[in-house]
Amino acid sequence: MKEIDRAYIAGFLDGDGCIMLQLIKRDDYLLGYQIRASIVFYQKTEYKNFLFWLKKQFGFGYVRDRNDGITEYTVVGFEAVRKALILLLPFVRLKKEQAILALEVINEAPGSGRKYQPKLFLKLAEKVDKFGQLNYSKKRKRTSKQVLNYFKKHNLLSP
Amino acid sequence: MKEIDRAYIAGFLDGDGCIMLQLIKRDDYLLGYQIRASIVFYQKTEYKNFLFWLKKQFGFGYVRDRNDGITEYTVVGFEAVRKALILLLPFVRLKKEQAILALEVINEAPGSGRKYQPKLFLKLAEKVDKFGQLNYSKKRKRTSKQVLNYFKKHNLLSP
Repeated sequence: MKEIDRAYIAGFLDGDGCIMLQLIKRDDYLLGYQIRASIVFYQKTEYKNFLFWLKKQFGFGYVRDRNDGITEYTVVGFEAVRKALILLLPFVRLKKEQAILALEVINEAPGSGRKYQPKLFLKLAEKVDKFGQLNYSKKRKRTSKQVLNYFKKHNLLSP
Repeated sequence: MKEIDRAYIAGFLDGDGCIMLQLIKRDDYLLGYQIRASIVFYQKTEYKNFLFWLKKQFGFGYVRDRNDGITEYTVVGFEAVRKALILLLPFVRLKKEQAILALEVINEAPGSGRKYQPKLFLKLAEKVDKFGQLNYSKKRKRTSKQVLNYFKKHNLLSP
């Protein structure tokens, strides 16, 4: 990706994009929870070509029409989010804290397909909590506290 | 301004900024109306340092705290808006139409301190009308139609 496009996209992300880390309840996961990383860009559906241009620059992610006239371009998953953030980080200004924190969590997580130690998961879940504040999210449902309770209940923290 | 900063700011403008042309009622103006050009960037007051950084890049405009926790950085006036748009135009994507239309109006207007011909003013006012649609403004009060009525009432269009 050209440096000039990386700078432009970083500006757009700072203006109207979102870097998110969330805890997702997964009944089929050993630890009961998943950490999901995503970057989302929004635009009126009318201008969704712009989002396809963005997608083309990154070479991954997907574009989805919502039912309220807004279209979203989402980059989801540790590997894709890592790649995107490394491209944007030098140019991001307002969302630098989120970008660095997301990269930290992604780097500390075990690689794809490898198991988490419950203690490590809990530590990362606490970092994920911070995104709720950084993004002024009012509807964040899952927190590291719930993960801790789940681990205790299922005896996952015993040595 | 560095090219990389121009690209970043164009991205931020596309994401969360606004290019505006408005008709302002001016009882002390010969034609009764003024065309005001402005570019506005918004941010939570908490992060207003970012807006001061923007202001430093342009070297003009002013930063103002609103009373709702938002701070605005505004570039206002034909000359300042022209300078800013010429810097950003090569990088702007979503707001290119607004940027080009604003530059058109500014270029066709008589220079600072020089008088408008009423017919030219009316023609430019019609271009200003388009900004209401382009910016999805629902509260645009002044239109070229009102200007036309005012001109007729005050006999400004007679040769």
